[in-house]
Amino acid sequence: MKVVAGIDIGGTKTKIGLVDKDGNNLVQTDFYTREYFDLNAYLLHIVNTIKELHTQLPIPGYTLVGIGIGAPNASSRRGTIEHAPNLVWKGIVPFLDELKKLIDLPAKIMNDASAAALGEMLFGHAKEMKDFIVVTLGTGFGSGIVANGQLIEGFDGFAGELGHTDLTLGDGRLTGLGIKGGLEAYVSSTGLKRTILYMLCKYMDDSKFRSFSYDDLHGEDIMKAAEEGDPIALKAFEYTGRILGFALANFTAFTQPEAFFLMGGLANSGSWIFEPTKKYLEKHLLEIYKGKVKVLPSGMIGKNAAILGAAALIWEDFKK
Amino acid sequence: MKVVAGIDIGGTKTKIGLVDKDGNNLVQTDFYTREYFDLNAYLLHIVNTIKELHTQLPIPGYTLVGIGIGAPNASSRRGTIEHAPNLVWKGIVPFLDELKKLIDLPAKIMNDASAAALGEMLFGHAKEMKDFIVVTLGTGFGSGIVANGQLIEGFDGFAGELGHTDLTLGDGRLTGLGIKGGLEAYVSSTGLKRTILYMLCKYMDDSKFRSFSYDDLHGEDIMKAAEEGDPIALKAFEYTGRILGFALANFTAFTQPEAFFLMGGLANSGSWIFEPTKKYLEKHLLEIYKGKVKVLPSGMIGKNAAILGAAALIWEDFKK
Repeated sequence: MKVVAGIDIGGTKTKIGLVDKDGNNLVQTDFYTREYFDLNAYLLHIVNTIKELHTQLPIPGYTLVGIGIGAPNASSRRGTIEHAPNLVWKGIVPFLDELKKLIDLPAKIMNDASAAALGEMLFGHAKEMKDFIVVTLGTGFGSGIVANGQLIEGFDGFAGELGHTDLTLGDGRLTGLGIKGGLEAYVSSTGLKRTILYMLCKYMDDSKFRSFSYDDLHGEDIMKAAEEGDPIALKAFEYTGRILGFALANFTAFTQPEAFFLMGGLANSGSWIFEPTKKYLEKHLLEIYKGKVKVLPSGMIGKNAAILGAAALIWEDFKK
Repeated sequence: MKVVAGIDIGGTKTKIGLVDKDGNNLVQTDFYTREYFDLNAYLLHIVNTIKELHTQLPIPGYTLVGIGIGAPNASSRRGTIEHAPNLVWKGIVPFLDELKKLIDLPAKIMNDASAAALGEMLFGHAKEMKDFIVVTLGTGFGSGIVANGQLIEGFDGFAGELGHTDLTLGDGRLTGLGIKGGLEAYVSSTGLKRTILYMLCKYMDDSKFRSFSYDDLHGEDIMKAAEEGDPIALKAFEYTGRILGFALANFTAFTQPEAFFLMGGLANSGSWIFEPTKKYLEKHLLEIYKGKVKVLPSGMIGKNAAILGAAALIWEDFKK
């Protein structure tokens, strides 16, 4: 029996799990990424953690056959992490080369949202699909694109940064990367909070959020307020879905996916975000696309999508 | 020796050529598409024309091995032409099925700009590339996307309609299809003419175009005026390149192409369109993409790109 190590490198935590061919995350642990300013110390800790997890497997006899890694700003083609704003290692980090000095196993690295798309294809709701896009709506807006049954990697491995496309000709909200009008400034957990402020500014409706500071706003509260009929929360979801639906209509004109899968904090708001998104997507689609594009919850919700996606990088090769 | 029939179906003319494996268009003819309101009469004329061209080959001994067709609103997956606004056959036309009743040869149909991208890969400047996008800037804005060395076709064959993406959140110029803010309303031969009017409205500079009606505006005149230093023509090219550069930066975040190839009337304006496009593309690219994306003239300029692209649909299979 084979098992693959899936590693999710986040700005705060690094999560590691051992994943079997059916997408079961058999054992798992995590640690704080920021405790390892030195890359080699970090990689050594990863290798030791994998070995330790391997001894903790509930059944013995699994062979570790590879390591898949999802990380922000990772180039799949070059095995690097480059200029990742939320990570402590700066510049161009030759991640895979350094890792392979410490452990002799097949290893791959990829943008975390692209890894999530592979996870959706191998273990989620896209098993029968050849053309789909996974959108991760957390603090930011990530995306992984599959077309012709293959992940789109891009010329040097940085394809799928749809959260940084701009729908406002450079005249909108600033993103964390300083992009004016970037989609993730509108459509993400952070974007939704910003939109609450925008609606409080634009309209004079009563709202529980008039007594909240920006720092006190949380996605779950906004969903709860929408359920209670808070007009500002309702307007914020409608606006967010309008922008997302509009963006998905543009994306459809690119690779014409069969479905968009949404995951992450904002996607967990369920119909509050799905309904306006579907409505405005359909409204803005070209005639040849109308009625053909699905917007679905990811099949990875409730699972550890990031670890499974990372493991999928390796499992994909064994399934070919 | 093998030869492939390449057919370019346009609203005005249908062009047919016989193309060898090196992309030489050996014989060619054309006729008016609109003379054939009846699809079967049209298809019969096509088949007879191919047979006639085959007898006219300069050297005998070529075997006709297939028919490739480029057409607006063609679905490669379904072999249909669907709701094409500029063609006389309305609704969903089962083009390939009907054609195959008349001639027993491999046949494929595809969106004309996607066919152009295959032509660029087989016979043009993208022979060594796996990730690139061809943009056709004529009356409209067409696009063909290659990623991972494959043409992106989309779930049911309608991928690559980038001219209908919208950068203005639905608040811009109307396209011919009624899309507000659609890119082709700005970046195309028609878009450039519209921008001349916009600049004449916005600024009070002297310009030869103050005495021109919209109907009298032509792309070549606008280029000539730019060369003479006409301030309105200069502003119009700068504006068009700004929008195109901005759009290409967005597209880069999608599939991260190595290069964009421009062809068609507006692309023939050379540095007047290429220079501002490159400048604004570079300005708007995410950090991870900067300095890595080329904007190049198509290698099909001066050749019959549409016929060669159509023929490439069949030649691609023989080259695998």
